[in-house]
Amino acid sequence: MNQDAIKAWLDAVDRFSGNPSSLHRMGSRAEKALEDARHSMADLLACSPLDIVWTSGATESNNTIWHHLGKTLAPDAEVWISSIEHPCSVDSARYWLGKRVRWIPVARDGVIEWEWLKSRMGKRSPQLVCVMAANNETGCLQPWQAIRDLCADHGVPFFCDAAQWLGRLPADGLGSCDWVSGCAHKFGGPNGVGFLKCPSSGRLHALLKGGPQEAHRRAGTENVPGVLSMVSALLAREALLKPAAIKGKQAIQHTFETMLLEEMPGVRVLGSCVQRLWNTSTVVMPAMDCRIRWVVKLDKLGFAVSTGSACASGNEKPSHVLEAMALDPSEASRVLRFSSGWETPQDAWKELRLAVQKVPALVTGPFNA
Amino acid sequence: MNQDAIKAWLDAVDRFSGNPSSLHRMGSRAEKALEDARHSMADLLACSPLDIVWTSGATESNNTIWHHLGKTLAPDAEVWISSIEHPCSVDSARYWLGKRVRWIPVARDGVIEWEWLKSRMGKRSPQLVCVMAANNETGCLQPWQAIRDLCADHGVPFFCDAAQWLGRLPADGLGSCDWVSGCAHKFGGPNGVGFLKCPSSGRLHALLKGGPQEAHRRAGTENVPGVLSMVSALLAREALLKPAAIKGKQAIQHTFETMLLEEMPGVRVLGSCVQRLWNTSTVVMPAMDCRIRWVVKLDKLGFAVSTGSACASGNEKPSHVLEAMALDPSEASRVLRFSSGWETPQDAWKELRLAVQKVPALVTGPFNA
Repeated sequence: MNQDAIKAWLDAVDRFSGNPSSLHRMGSRAEKALEDARHSMADLLACSPLDIVWTSGATESNNTIWHHLGKTLAPDAEVWISSIEHPCSVDSARYWLGKRVRWIPVARDGVIEWEWLKSRMGKRSPQLVCVMAANNETGCLQPWQAIRDLCADHGVPFFCDAAQWLGRLPADGLGSCDWVSGCAHKFGGPNGVGFLKCPSSGRLHALLKGGPQEAHRRAGTENVPGVLSMVSALLAREALLKPAAIKGKQAIQHTFETMLLEEMPGVRVLGSCVQRLWNTSTVVMPAMDCRIRWVVKLDKLGFAVSTGSACASGNEKPSHVLEAMALDPSEASRVLRFSSGWETPQDAWKELRLAVQKVPALVTGPFNA
Repeated sequence: MNQDAIKAWLDAVDRFSGNPSSLHRMGSRAEKALEDARHSMADLLACSPLDIVWTSGATESNNTIWHHLGKTLAPDAEVWISSIEHPCSVDSARYWLGKRVRWIPVARDGVIEWEWLKSRMGKRSPQLVCVMAANNETGCLQPWQAIRDLCADHGVPFFCDAAQWLGRLPADGLGSCDWVSGCAHKFGGPNGVGFLKCPSSGRLHALLKGGPQEAHRRAGTENVPGVLSMVSALLAREALLKPAAIKGKQAIQHTFETMLLEEMPGVRVLGSCVQRLWNTSTVVMPAMDCRIRWVVKLDKLGFAVSTGSACASGNEKPSHVLEAMALDPSEASRVLRFSSGWETPQDAWKELRLAVQKVPALVTGPFNA
């Protein structure tokens, strides 16, 4: 967590312990702080503060949107969703919308098929288009600005899950999407807090019911310290997201990937030809008996790497993202995700590369899980 | 917030920043901490740790139960819910269960009508009975232990919302209810975190979908610092909840109410003849032009009091709780809720009483909102 965000949390615990819904001054002070935070968030996204709803995280934000649409769209409505959305959108959209969902295909490079979208738009009008800003498994950026504009031209609402984008690339412009979601712990804020940016008109059918909070859009006592800490983290990060700084991070990533490809034949970087987040390199590794081997060995060498969401759940079939990118199961089973934070020093990437090269030599004999 | 709980939060932010779903050691350490907390919570409630699901608060916990029941119960099933449940149960149960809800009446003293429940049980078998442990507007304790036993005798699942009870009276025994909900900020923990205790058998249909967390019962990255802080707060509080200490708090409340009744003719304490939480005195005040006057004047004298949830929402009709207790609208419009924390010193109650007596003299001329 960002130090500013920790301070903001502690400060709020101390100063804003009142319930923002209460009429007394302790409550009013907490409410004022919460509304100031709403204005700051709206400024960062470039939207109206009235459109911001605080939630417990991106999972809740996304579930809220799909529940709302499930309850309000006609039975024959169509909603177009990219086939690489986060599981909390995929599962929730399937549950609430059922057969009304149509999946937007992605190319092998991990980016949605723009031509598919463009050629169909106008012939048939979906009630919503949903494409995330950046993918959580590959870091591949999606052309959300172009999709937003295409949707606007056709009067189609656009939802952009920005959980992976925020704090890594500037937030500016996201506020002109109809729906946006995100969460604090992706950019140095605390766990358990996020937001949902809603369209300026129309009522939101709350998923969490039972209170007038957030203008009846999300019941529950407001998490004032969490929200203030989240906004503090994003303000601190946005101040650092200058073009030169981002280019610097991208150069480090490029060097890491180039050297890894040179030093380790058979390695393939997913989405290597498209724009990606500077913090994520998702790589098909050389064959080994079990990819968990990589995680364990690198862990012992001091590096926490990920196999992606599928493996973590004990579910060894390829993730829907890798399937959508048409990886064959053998490739998908060898995928590792290397990711970094804003503060990760350049040297760490070099050390990681050296560690990766050491692993095969460390593996002797068959693996017994 | 409790100081132990703040320390636990900071410690977790520092030591358990890994994602509990990740395979590397940073993730495992966070997962271990989360599971240790689950065991501690289960010990406090006296239930299995497998039955505990972490949530963003009691509102989410309660909404989760009603969604689950709405999706799983037959169209002609009946669910019996007390008419004084928290709005996050009332609204959510109405939404998900519709006409399957039957409201259990309460007497004028604010306690559910035991005879109504007992005489009907067995003749007709509801699919669930829901009665909170203590009411949030009046502090009136409900006979949840007797209801739990009655339900068990008839094989009917029982849900007890313990949000107001926990941290004020001992948690022990709650774990033998089929469903229990609660949240941290009621007992000195942080905002934005709570729990749901589920039955030991049967699958829970998650409200928040899209991840394997909490054994597929609640998707979303786990709020490790929030959970550890919550459990730390409850452990700290439970250690203080000795019979003598609770009796002491009750004596302070009794003195406050007795003196207030003596000094201020026309005052009535709601539920004065029944067992109530030691921290809540809900009082029908003498007539004044507007009860917000009381809040404003007492606020200036240093006391944050509440008019109850209805007023806070800008909605001036009596709350469903006061209506269920058959208060006439004129009485209901004069209700103030005085509540305290565990640390509130005895003198503060005396000072509050003196402040209450000063208010009428401070009010001169008609109130112009």
